[in-house]
Parts: sequence; C-alpha cells; structure tokens
Amino acid sequence: MCDTCGCSATANPESVEVLKGLLAANDHQAMHNREHLDRHRTLAINLMSSPGAGKTSLLEATIDALSEKLNMAVIEGDLETENDANRIRGKGVTAIQICTGTACHLDANMVHTALHQLPLHKLDVVFIENVGNLVCPASFDLGQHVNVALLSTPEGDDKAAKYPVMFRAADLILITKSDLLSLLDDFDPEKAASHVRALANPAPIHTLSARNGSGLHAWFDWIAGQMSQMNAGVRQ
Amino acid sequence: MCDTCGCSATANPESVEVLKGLLAANDHQAMHNREHLDRHRTLAINLMSSPGAGKTSLLEATIDALSEKLNMAVIEGDLETENDANRIRGKGVTAIQICTGTACHLDANMVHTALHQLPLHKLDVVFIENVGNLVCPASFDLGQHVNVALLSTPEGDDKAAKYPVMFRAADLILITKSDLLSLLDDFDPEKAASHVRALANPAPIHTLSARNGSGLHAWFDWIAGQMSQMNAGVRQ
Repeated sequence: MCDTCGCSATANPESVEVLKGLLAANDHQAMHNREHLDRHRTLAINLMSSPGAGKTSLLEATIDALSEKLNMAVIEGDLETENDANRIRGKGVTAIQICTGTACHLDANMVHTALHQLPLHKLDVVFIENVGNLVCPASFDLGQHVNVALLSTPEGDDKAAKYPVMFRAADLILITKSDLLSLLDDFDPEKAASHVRALANPAPIHTLSARNGSGLHAWFDWIAGQMSQMNAGVRQ
Repeated sequence: MCDTCGCSATANPESVEVLKGLLAANDHQAMHNREHLDRHRTLAINLMSSPGAGKTSLLEATIDALSEKLNMAVIEGDLETENDANRIRGKGVTAIQICTGTACHLDANMVHTALHQLPLHKLDVVFIENVGNLVCPASFDLGQHVNVALLSTPEGDDKAAKYPVMFRAADLILITKSDLLSLLDDFDPEKAASHVRALANPAPIHTLSARNGSGLHAWFDWIAGQMSQMNAGVRQ
C-alpha cells in the first residue's frame, strides 16, 4: 500500500500500520453515518467521476425533474470554490460545500460534519458529489448506500479497464454527455459496457445527456427503485 | 496533511512524520533522476491531466510530426492495461508501461526504474504520461524538467479554479479537444485562461486539437524552445 495515498505503490511497515488504523477509523465513522441516515430513512447516493464529467449538471437536471416529488439536499466536495454548491442553491436546494484544500477525496469525517448541518428527518435523498477523481474516492466509504460512477463520452470508452477500482465499486454506471457521441470516434457505448462486465460488475449502465435530457428517465427510475428498497427496509 | 493521500484533510502527528520522510525520500530520488537526465541532455516532460483529456492522442500526433527531428521515448503511467504504451509502440517509439495497480500517481522511484530501461544517451526527449488524475500527481516530483497540464474542453473552463495545485504546478497549459468547442456552452478559452492567471501562474496557454491538428504548431515550438534551453545549459 502506498504510504501517501492509501494505494498500492510502496510498502513501509511503519506507515502501513498507521494507514490501517486510519482506514479502520474511516470505516467506523462511515458506519456511524450510515446508521444516522438509516434512522431517518434518508437515501445517500455518492456520485464519483473524473473532473468535468457532468456530476453537477446531472444534479441540476435531477432537481428540475424530481423536486416536487422528493426532498433532496447535496453535499459538494471540491478542492476549492463554492461554485458547485451555488449552482445547486440556485435551484432552491440546500447544498453544503466541503472545500478539501488539497485533499483528493471526501472522507467519512467530512461527510459526518456536513450531515449534521442537514435536516435529515425532512430529507428523502442526500446526494454526495465527491471530488472529481477517478481513483482515490473509490477507496473511502462515506456511509453512502450506493455508489454511482459517471463516465463522460469524451473521456473514451476504455476507462473501466484503466480505472478498475472505481468501476468495480459502482452500483450504477452513467455514461454522460451522450449528445457529443456523434462527434467522437473513440467512444462505443457497447465497448464501454464490455469493460465494466470484464470486471465482473453486473451494475446497470445507462447512457444519458443532462444537456438535452435524453436517457434521464432511466436514472430517475433507478433513484425511485432505491427509494423503494430503502422504505421497504431491504437494506436494514 | 491527510494521512492517506499526502493531502491536507486531517493531521495525525505520527503519520505526518512518516509522510514527511517519504516525501523527502521521493524528492531525493527525483533529484537523482534529474541529474541522470541532465547528464545525457535528455529533456523530460511530465504530462498531467484528468482521465481521457487526450494525453496519448497528443503524444501520437507529436510523434507523427517530430519523429524525424527528435529521438523520443515515452513512460506510460496507468493503474492497469498496456493500452497506451501499445498505442505509442504502434508509432514506432519505445514506451515503458508502469502499471501502478491502485496507485493514483507516478512517483520518482517508478520513473527511476523506467529510466534505466531507456537508452538515454540516444534520446532527446522523454515524455512521462502520468496517471489520469487532476489532483495527486501534482504533488510528486519525478525528476522531470517541466510540467504540462492538459485541460480538455468538455471538462469545463473552471478547472484551474477547482484544481489549483495542478494548475499552479504547470509550466505549460494545453487546452485540448478544441474541435468540440462549437458544441460546448460551458467552455470559454478566455475564462479558462483567467482562472490560471488568478493563480498567479504566467505559463503559456495554447489551445489545440490532436484530432484535426489545429494549434499543434505552438506545442511543437514550445518543445523546441525547451530543447534549446536544455542544450544551452540554461537549466544546469
């Protein structure tokens, strides 16, 4: 395990021990977060992707479509700026911005602090928009119920093969920016899906565009399905 | 400093000490790599970006244009697969693939091992294609002479504000995939540049497309300028 990133690059016995303790502490905090969310029957969805893959645009489209049916809030993770939180607030939805400084992922402690600023008893769904990074966020449990990985078409259809940790951890994969597909010669949605299946991940894969609205219904239906499971107590 | 990622999330005195030692060891190895490259007057260019921003495509176009003038080699960093190295080899250029497993960045030790597999005395330029990640690679000196950050237009023009560590560390910024600009309503090249300038980084910024070739000449001229500095001994 890499001593600086929780990854597998180098192994120094002293720091591996320190790291194990820290990851165990993160898991413990994440479990506490999940219990807290479960108590209020609030579904927590962790959105992860490369920078600029369209997480905030997807949330804006989701708020536009579902805000009459669901009470939602968003926890925004960014190294710097409140830009994304302000976009969400512009839609009339509460957003808690976590500025991580130079930290490359959210951790369970940061999310715990944010959860305590939200009226969970009134909320159906909390979206957690993780730091844009296709590597590190996948290794840190935040207490979410489900992980969603976004893959934007301009990134190329090989990303699941090249970033397997993220695409193994995903409960749902969304291929975003489908409106650009006609211009791209290096993105075949079937190839993208085959790379996910090669990781033995049977998660549903939907293709959509927040810009023109195509395919969004499948994402909304998936959220509704997760809500039903939560309310039926399947997860508890 | 975060105990797991070398970032600023949390501070545990014990692991901060371990980390400091590790980063110092990385810097020491990087200095050794740079001396090794300098001895052979081989320019090392570290390419960093989000996943799928077009680093490999840029290298392919660069090889096509410059292989008669320059002897080049590529060190490829990826979590998994030899795909990128194979694309470079397909152009007749030596590529050393480093598979980092779950590691989110290259470090100086990995690059040292790769350098010893290359005939540096015959090479003018070694390109290091870092792991696709807009956060962690910026913190690890590899022994390169210059850092190049790529920002692809579909990612949005706000990335320098949101990922300041990367864009502060860049000696050159390349705005890639300019062929998609006409379709994008959230990328203004002037805004992208203003975010870089707000970080007090005076680095040149060029806009290009490896797909249609536009703007590549400025990138080639920049490489030639770096080669001249190297050969004039300005850096030593």
